[in-house]
Amino acid sequence: MIVKNADLNGVISDIFIKDGIITDIVAVDKRSNIVDSENVFDAENKKVVPSFFNTHTHSAMTLLRGYADDMPLNPWLSEKIWPAEAKLVPEDVYWGTKLACLEMIKTGTTFFNDMYWCIDSIIKAATEMNMRLAVSATFIDIGKDTDKLIKELDDTYERVSAIDNPNIIFTIAPHAIYTVSEKMLKYSGKFAKDHDLFIHTHLSETKKEYDDCLRDHGMKPAFYLDSFGLLTEKTMLAHSVWLDDDEIKLIADRGATVSHNPISNMKLSVGKAFDYRKMKNANVRVTLGTDGCSSNNNLNMAESMKFASILQKFAYNDPALMSAEECFKIASFNGAEAFGIKAGKIEKGYDADFLVLKSNIYDMTPGFNVYSDIVYSVGNNFVDSVFCKGKLIMEHGKIEGEDEIISHAKKISKKFIS
Amino acid sequence: MIVKNADLNGVISDIFIKDGIITDIVAVDKRSNIVDSENVFDAENKKVVPSFFNTHTHSAMTLLRGYADDMPLNPWLSEKIWPAEAKLVPEDVYWGTKLACLEMIKTGTTFFNDMYWCIDSIIKAATEMNMRLAVSATFIDIGKDTDKLIKELDDTYERVSAIDNPNIIFTIAPHAIYTVSEKMLKYSGKFAKDHDLFIHTHLSETKKEYDDCLRDHGMKPAFYLDSFGLLTEKTMLAHSVWLDDDEIKLIADRGATVSHNPISNMKLSVGKAFDYRKMKNANVRVTLGTDGCSSNNNLNMAESMKFASILQKFAYNDPALMSAEECFKIASFNGAEAFGIKAGKIEKGYDADFLVLKSNIYDMTPGFNVYSDIVYSVGNNFVDSVFCKGKLIMEHGKIEGEDEIISHAKKISKKFIS
Repeated sequence: MIVKNADLNGVISDIFIKDGIITDIVAVDKRSNIVDSENVFDAENKKVVPSFFNTHTHSAMTLLRGYADDMPLNPWLSEKIWPAEAKLVPEDVYWGTKLACLEMIKTGTTFFNDMYWCIDSIIKAATEMNMRLAVSATFIDIGKDTDKLIKELDDTYERVSAIDNPNIIFTIAPHAIYTVSEKMLKYSGKFAKDHDLFIHTHLSETKKEYDDCLRDHGMKPAFYLDSFGLLTEKTMLAHSVWLDDDEIKLIADRGATVSHNPISNMKLSVGKAFDYRKMKNANVRVTLGTDGCSSNNNLNMAESMKFASILQKFAYNDPALMSAEECFKIASFNGAEAFGIKAGKIEKGYDADFLVLKSNIYDMTPGFNVYSDIVYSVGNNFVDSVFCKGKLIMEHGKIEGEDEIISHAKKISKKFIS
Repeated sequence: MIVKNADLNGVISDIFIKDGIITDIVAVDKRSNIVDSENVFDAENKKVVPSFFNTHTHSAMTLLRGYADDMPLNPWLSEKIWPAEAKLVPEDVYWGTKLACLEMIKTGTTFFNDMYWCIDSIIKAATEMNMRLAVSATFIDIGKDTDKLIKELDDTYERVSAIDNPNIIFTIAPHAIYTVSEKMLKYSGKFAKDHDLFIHTHLSETKKEYDDCLRDHGMKPAFYLDSFGLLTEKTMLAHSVWLDDDEIKLIADRGATVSHNPISNMKLSVGKAFDYRKMKNANVRVTLGTDGCSSNNNLNMAESMKFASILQKFAYNDPALMSAEECFKIASFNGAEAFGIKAGKIEKGYDADFLVLKSNIYDMTPGFNVYSDIVYSVGNNFVDSVFCKGKLIMEHGKIEGEDEIISHAKKISKKFIS
């Protein structure tokens, strides 16, 4: 596969791809002959940049976009979100995940780290949409039968491990320290270690979680999680807002990664801004997530980048904090690296996960700086084509089955209204 | 003109328009015959909502989108923005304003309150793009010849008053209390009163402005402005972040309006969130502005709505504050009302300023609540067609001259790089 005439930071180049990996990049003024075949994609001098890695979402919650907003957390969850989710069947989750994939691809994302139920539906949807996926065995066991959940986890692991798709990463996802029992957290830590698994959990989203953990366990949340072996180089901690200096140091020492979810944090009034400067100074790897559609309400990483960057400037009173280019790296390279994927740069030896941007769109005009334009200016209509591990998964804005996905999602939504 | 098959909150209706005003709305199930003619636009059952009124921008700064970001305020202005602006000639401002209009129409805005130089270029651009415009004689006279500016103001007023276009409102715009002399502020107040003009100024964007005003004039900024007769029912105060309770009460008493610019405030680290709850409780009319492209970096009111709403939730720790529907009204009805325009509702007797939304787009799927979808979910690709005072100014996403505008803006930008 060759992507010819790609504008890479102003140098028009041909990108050579084999087995999903960039094998060479040659400036067109040094071009030898390219054999024009079906394996050549002409980028037509459009700008080409790395794709995005969404490190925390609940993808099928696209089905609940706009279903309930502007409510205090507890009635929002107990009166609206949970009763609606209780009506979802695996087929619904399949279509909700497809809608999520559609939205993510359209806005330049090639990987998502998902936390939701009906794992087989999620895998089927992401596979059909040709996306990379970290998919979790997700559990909440407060008030449930822990032994039954353990059996399910074992079964799920066996089933998913047998899937022959290198684009799918299996993770274990205890929902949060306040929704999972000590017994199950302990089992999770051992299970993750035995099978060398990635771990995905919510950590320190609210002050209440911090206060309750100290009161109930005599430990701060990060230390409590660590006590079960759940803080490793393969751990992704969603939110991580209410962490103190000791916890940030512990996370850095363990080599764990945080997923910043700025829109969700603001919309749900978590009461504090993620402390990027401290994370950076402590060498914690920071990545970006959209969270699910009921607390965002979209999966557009470009929009989340704008919120991330200007929330830092605002909350920490420094207009130079988290520059556009730095923010772009957080949303691309850092997210990939956290999951052991060599992507987020368009260089020889890196995976071919990248975007061909639309040209001549008003929101990237005049076009002084592509990072600034993507982080601060664009909406959701700036991506022309998307490559995921060398495969063209959106060509000139078109994704197969788009109308069918939207139509199914609308049909499913009717069950929440009645 | 008839807009048939418009989905108005779930009721498919025909909207009858004469001389720019909605004369009747009839549900299609009560439809008598419509004569199909060139004056019928078929909304094809798409949702129709009011358009947006952008109450503070510097439109031609589209030309500087992405030119300089992530810098502290003073070097950003003195080393980047001002030297670049010094290179702009009226022809550049014309194209920059056209680019701004293009972007605003595409994202559903039919009116903008502009503050920039080269007023004739701005009027020409907005007129050609069929937009409503409040255009200002803008001045900064610290270090300049005030008498010369007064003469220019008189001349500009005469010239603009003579233009026969009801879509253009002339305003007087002393830039800010810290950039305009007392002599000129006094003249402005009298001039506005003599000619019954709208007044447009920046007020209390930063704490420094508040502190300096107290120190230099022994008055808080709103009181200082009021002392010149510049706080009236026709005054639009951009930013209004650092106001204390007495100032908010004064603004309410005078019937002046504030323009909240959340993205600019956050990006430039003004250090405090606009206090919506206090404004609301004091019955101050709150409207929404994008500010210019060098501090935002776009003119998309839908994005500004999302920032406005969730910044309130975050900063004041209340997830129910500024609901989607309330935020939508701020961006539409309130902005129109502030300028004496009867719009922002789709009702008999109101001006026909409205949007036909795209149907079957992922970011409005499933589609539970149109206000939530517009405020929290959409990007910049949700508007199918735009009506401004009864005139169809964008039809199915197409605006005449789009490519030419983008090409000119790119050409002009070259002068900032050399």
